[in-house]
Amino acid sequence: MRMVDVIDAKRNGGELTAEQIKFFVDGYTAGDIPDYQASALLMAIWFNGMSDEETRNLTMDMLHSGDRLDLSDIPGVKVDKHSTGGVGDKVSIPLAPLVASLGIVVPMISGRGLGHTGGTLDKLEAIPGYTVEIGEDAFKKQLRDVGCIISGATGNIAPADKKIYALRDVTDTVDSIPLIAGSIMSKKIASGTDALVMDVKTGSGAFMKREEDAVALAHALVNIGKGVGMNAMAVISDMNQPLGRAIGNALEIEESIALLKGEGPDDLLDIVLTIGSQMTVMAGKAKSLEEARGMLEENIANGKALERFRMMVEAQGGDGRVVDDPTIMPQAKYHIPVLAEADGVIASMKADEMGIASMMLGGGRATKDDKLDYAVGLTLDRKVGDTVKAGDRLLTIHANREDVEDVKRLILDNIVIGDHADPITLIHQVIV
Amino acid sequence: MRMVDVIDAKRNGGELTAEQIKFFVDGYTAGDIPDYQASALLMAIWFNGMSDEETRNLTMDMLHSGDRLDLSDIPGVKVDKHSTGGVGDKVSIPLAPLVASLGIVVPMISGRGLGHTGGTLDKLEAIPGYTVEIGEDAFKKQLRDVGCIISGATGNIAPADKKIYALRDVTDTVDSIPLIAGSIMSKKIASGTDALVMDVKTGSGAFMKREEDAVALAHALVNIGKGVGMNAMAVISDMNQPLGRAIGNALEIEESIALLKGEGPDDLLDIVLTIGSQMTVMAGKAKSLEEARGMLEENIANGKALERFRMMVEAQGGDGRVVDDPTIMPQAKYHIPVLAEADGVIASMKADEMGIASMMLGGGRATKDDKLDYAVGLTLDRKVGDTVKAGDRLLTIHANREDVEDVKRLILDNIVIGDHADPITLIHQVIV
Repeated sequence: MRMVDVIDAKRNGGELTAEQIKFFVDGYTAGDIPDYQASALLMAIWFNGMSDEETRNLTMDMLHSGDRLDLSDIPGVKVDKHSTGGVGDKVSIPLAPLVASLGIVVPMISGRGLGHTGGTLDKLEAIPGYTVEIGEDAFKKQLRDVGCIISGATGNIAPADKKIYALRDVTDTVDSIPLIAGSIMSKKIASGTDALVMDVKTGSGAFMKREEDAVALAHALVNIGKGVGMNAMAVISDMNQPLGRAIGNALEIEESIALLKGEGPDDLLDIVLTIGSQMTVMAGKAKSLEEARGMLEENIANGKALERFRMMVEAQGGDGRVVDDPTIMPQAKYHIPVLAEADGVIASMKADEMGIASMMLGGGRATKDDKLDYAVGLTLDRKVGDTVKAGDRLLTIHANREDVEDVKRLILDNIVIGDHADPITLIHQVIV
Repeated sequence: MRMVDVIDAKRNGGELTAEQIKFFVDGYTAGDIPDYQASALLMAIWFNGMSDEETRNLTMDMLHSGDRLDLSDIPGVKVDKHSTGGVGDKVSIPLAPLVASLGIVVPMISGRGLGHTGGTLDKLEAIPGYTVEIGEDAFKKQLRDVGCIISGATGNIAPADKKIYALRDVTDTVDSIPLIAGSIMSKKIASGTDALVMDVKTGSGAFMKREEDAVALAHALVNIGKGVGMNAMAVISDMNQPLGRAIGNALEIEESIALLKGEGPDDLLDIVLTIGSQMTVMAGKAKSLEEARGMLEENIANGKALERFRMMVEAQGGDGRVVDDPTIMPQAKYHIPVLAEADGVIASMKADEMGIASMMLGGGRATKDDKLDYAVGLTLDRKVGDTVKAGDRLLTIHANREDVEDVKRLILDNIVIGDHADPITLIHQVIV
């Protein structure tokens, strides 16, 4: 088989055979197929897409390129959640301990942030001592002892995906639905979970700007999961404005803790309970979503979820006192208010630009090697739909530099104050 | 500027700016842009094409990547001809001396063959002593002394094209009209010609299988030429069956010499006279195509064209006696007839498969490093439209191996004998 013929088949709109996909994945991982042929194929896939069967074959070949975690000796249904990423999206952080507090096993392997979106692992590292690098034995021990973990990958998970993803990043072939689906699912299948809820974000701050693309990706993810016997479903949720009120690493941990104390913002709480209910039903711990939601609300009210969060933090080496005193995390030196320049209603607050503002303060990475400042970010005093008068505080910039005029300008340019706001629906669709 | 943004602009269907194209061509030639990003861009161009302006900018940047031949100190209009390549296409070989015999300067820089198509330089090297590697001074001296030359490129012509072409070859991005046009024209402009007739082949043996693609390529070539003040035009000619009756290196030289003696096959003569007339008018040596054609026919009849061929061969170190005795070129050991298996009319004779048959005998290259056997090839006794009876000789295989059953089978599988033949038009269109 010649790689140029594989490229040709896809370029001309054909469907790649299982053998052709395996030839590509194995050959590229082994270094037998050069980057320049792989990138030509990836671009042809970007243009011509992949069928469900091709996407499944790609996923399985990337899965088989590395190790697979076996969690079958841990009793109970293992349920995971994955988000395609957004701004202010700290859902996983309160969600994992909350669900685990019902006796459900939550093995969550998360990632780092790049560009305008934050990463769950980065946020957790704002807690002094918290480590995300966990070996397989410790990973399983923590699942047995605490019931939940949020860490990076253990072992050599899907090296084919790692290599292909790095190439996609520099060849403008990231935003391809089959390639995204294959990348996410090869890693999720490798992590050994039985069930998975995907949170597919759509809107200005999401990868998938258009809802139809988010829906197509959700279907692809669910199809792949079901194809390997995983109980998979997806929620399409809004990412036009930031989720919750905090953007930035320590700030988002603080907001997650507040949520577990019953003091979380409504939108964040709603999505945590929506996804948590699905996970609870999937795990067989509740018969209906309503019942599950009630159980989750109860464990917030009675402090069990917060206690589980503290256990998780301590099991991973973190300072559990963060639960009582979030100021043990790095704190910003300057707190600079951004004020409304007109009277009216907040019509929009572009999520991606708010994420970039946080990145400019040092809270996110422009390139993979950037160091993070855990303290900085934004806290939103107002959100879309709120009425403001000129001079009212819209949000607060948490900075470690005094001059933040550039950030302020970007923010003000991307908050529209008008005479009305279209209502935002947080959960657009549930796809099973 | 970042290469990934250039890829993104083209991938999303936009038009690249002059700066973006220059960034790519210069950066890739210098080795600053890696192959994998270049191939992603080439694939995006394959899908989304290029505007006339983008194609012109690409051409000019590839041109400026290397040397440019200055022929301005040679008196007279310099007229060149280029073919996109076909099977049995030896037009350049009799054409250059024929046109030069009218006092027109013909600086012809040709290429080698790959796959089913032959190369003009390969064919000329069948003549003992003929060299195609000529330095710039010798190139210009020969143009002054003889009026014509057929050689490889002198100096460092369009190194950007060389590098990009090599990448296209292995990434399935060869058959893109703007990329083909840029590749051809960057080299032709660099060769210093004032006027150019493009012979764009269409049909089974051509790069452009569909006439509409050939026409689009012809327009692109003519537009680029005119954009730099070159007098450019194109002829769309048929390549469904081989041109002339000889396929193979020495065999095609022999046929070229026969043509210059007034003994050439009709189709080959027609195309030589058609293109030659255009060149003659372009050079200002005749007022009309009819007048030009008459002058060319006269110089075949009076032997001046043949004499000019001998001068060209000798100027390039070749043995001029080839004109009187073509058997001084390598001759095949075996001459094996291929006979008709049925009565009827030859309905088709696929040019590309006849080219592959010659390649299998050793007359062409499957890969760039293959050595050629100059002696071998095919001579056609019948062509499309001829009536045959079972047992009649269709063609003769010239081979240096005795067992040619594989070649014979391929040939018979690709000559259709039916009850009628659609007429073949040799010259489809002239594009100015």
